[in-house]
Amino acid sequence: MPIAIIVTDRDVSLLKQKTREYLSGTTPVWVYPDIPAPEAVEMAVVWKHPAGILNTFPNLKLVSSLGAGVEQILADKNIPPQVAITRIVDGALLSSMRNYVLMAVLNIHKQFRYYQHNQREMRWEKPEPVEIPLRIGLLGLGQLGAGIAQSLVALGFELWGYSLAPRQIEGVRCMHAENVSSSDFASNVNLLICLLPLTKATEGVLNIGLFRKMPRGSYLINVARGAHLREDDLLQAMKEGRIREAWLDVFREEPLPPSHPFWLYDSIIATPHIASITNQDNAARIIAENYVKLKAGEPLLFEVSREKGY
Amino acid sequence: MPIAIIVTDRDVSLLKQKTREYLSGTTPVWVYPDIPAPEAVEMAVVWKHPAGILNTFPNLKLVSSLGAGVEQILADKNIPPQVAITRIVDGALLSSMRNYVLMAVLNIHKQFRYYQHNQREMRWEKPEPVEIPLRIGLLGLGQLGAGIAQSLVALGFELWGYSLAPRQIEGVRCMHAENVSSSDFASNVNLLICLLPLTKATEGVLNIGLFRKMPRGSYLINVARGAHLREDDLLQAMKEGRIREAWLDVFREEPLPPSHPFWLYDSIIATPHIASITNQDNAARIIAENYVKLKAGEPLLFEVSREKGY
Repeated sequence: MPIAIIVTDRDVSLLKQKTREYLSGTTPVWVYPDIPAPEAVEMAVVWKHPAGILNTFPNLKLVSSLGAGVEQILADKNIPPQVAITRIVDGALLSSMRNYVLMAVLNIHKQFRYYQHNQREMRWEKPEPVEIPLRIGLLGLGQLGAGIAQSLVALGFELWGYSLAPRQIEGVRCMHAENVSSSDFASNVNLLICLLPLTKATEGVLNIGLFRKMPRGSYLINVARGAHLREDDLLQAMKEGRIREAWLDVFREEPLPPSHPFWLYDSIIATPHIASITNQDNAARIIAENYVKLKAGEPLLFEVSREKGY
Repeated sequence: MPIAIIVTDRDVSLLKQKTREYLSGTTPVWVYPDIPAPEAVEMAVVWKHPAGILNTFPNLKLVSSLGAGVEQILADKNIPPQVAITRIVDGALLSSMRNYVLMAVLNIHKQFRYYQHNQREMRWEKPEPVEIPLRIGLLGLGQLGAGIAQSLVALGFELWGYSLAPRQIEGVRCMHAENVSSSDFASNVNLLICLLPLTKATEGVLNIGLFRKMPRGSYLINVARGAHLREDDLLQAMKEGRIREAWLDVFREEPLPPSHPFWLYDSIIATPHIASITNQDNAARIIAENYVKLKAGEPLLFEVSREKGY
């Protein structure tokens, strides 16, 4: 019962090798487009998979995302409802995402770009205040959000958290969607970090209505998905002085096209979707474990609810 | 018995006001140059004080630094040996220093400047590896060093620590000056952070001999004192490819003169001594407490040993 790896944006030879190793070589691991017998495949590991490809596996039982997000799998109407969907959640993913978010928060707090600008002009100048007072809001308190919240609390930042269902995290003022809208939540903070899963309910959550509730001169960090942000609304909010600076690691179209205005804004820091990188060794371990559980009919790790969308 | 505040590089009206408040207005607090009766002064709070000024206080009993460093006080030959010396150690100072160091470490680890450069050229490119593997060495494991070490360990970094006397910190490979030279210590790491006090023994510790022990393409962060670094040696080490990038918050001459070559290096990140800022409210509380202890003949907080130099 072979595993098919269908990943179109990177080299996955390490993933293939490690998955085989964790299964002691008992199971063939095929990498798209080299799938000799599609009808034999019962498990597929996918990332940015070509439309319709999953239709070619009549005996598919499990689709695993190669990352934490599953929106492309859920959007694929070719996957029959009885096929299970899982995702990868691992410590290296949390750690690299946390490092990115902490970097962005500290650069903002310490005004690093102000000094870089001054260095180019050979100017020795201390701003007043030296550190920007931040009230930080986290949209999304899942595995990643909760871990990042803890690190920010440990550094002494004032932290607010927002989730769909009620959550409790020590040191974080938690609010949830049943009582408060995301834009009312945002009115409490001057730095908003988006870590939400992408679902119909969260698409476009970062829009002009929300930005206008935030204090003038606020900050935005989006490390979730490009479709969380209405890109024109961000430019409008910057024009209005509502958002002073935005750190964006994800975009509606990736790679960000050369004609996109985001490249040219001094107040937009664009990085090429590098906040969090799947560690292929860790991913292979989880994939192998889920393969074994699938064969044994046991409950799967990190199974996704189609209804909730994450 | 008035307190004299002699600080030449910033406005200290908040410090004066808070010190008066913590002493319930019972003690005059004078700010240089407005010292009506120098012979009445028994306690002086100083930072970058003019040469000879302490000579004008015949009844001086205590000199407090306004910061964590005391090298300028120890170098002042006008202070009689029976005068006690104290410094300010407080949570806000640790927190702002830690934030700077974490910012620099994460910018290096995540290669932030690479993306900034690429953004200016509208280039979407992921480096390989995405995160630079770091072995971090801390020179100095005092109040600041130990606190910063803990934060870096919590983020999962490999950490080495070096101190004059033996120290033990969980998760840190500790070495000390009795067994190992600072340059042999540096051979273990590819990112060195200097947090040492400035003494005769540590002046110029960051020199070409030490840099040449480090692996090619190493990193340096200096947030201690400018005189820890031989500035020409750094430029030489960069020329030799030994040091790839240096983050410097302190310099031999401050403000860094417009003619200084450091301004122009792309691989030197220069900030205007802002890593750690004394919080005037917290400092006033410690100053007031030490004033009360001085009057009561009790042991002082954060008293400095002239012999050790810190």
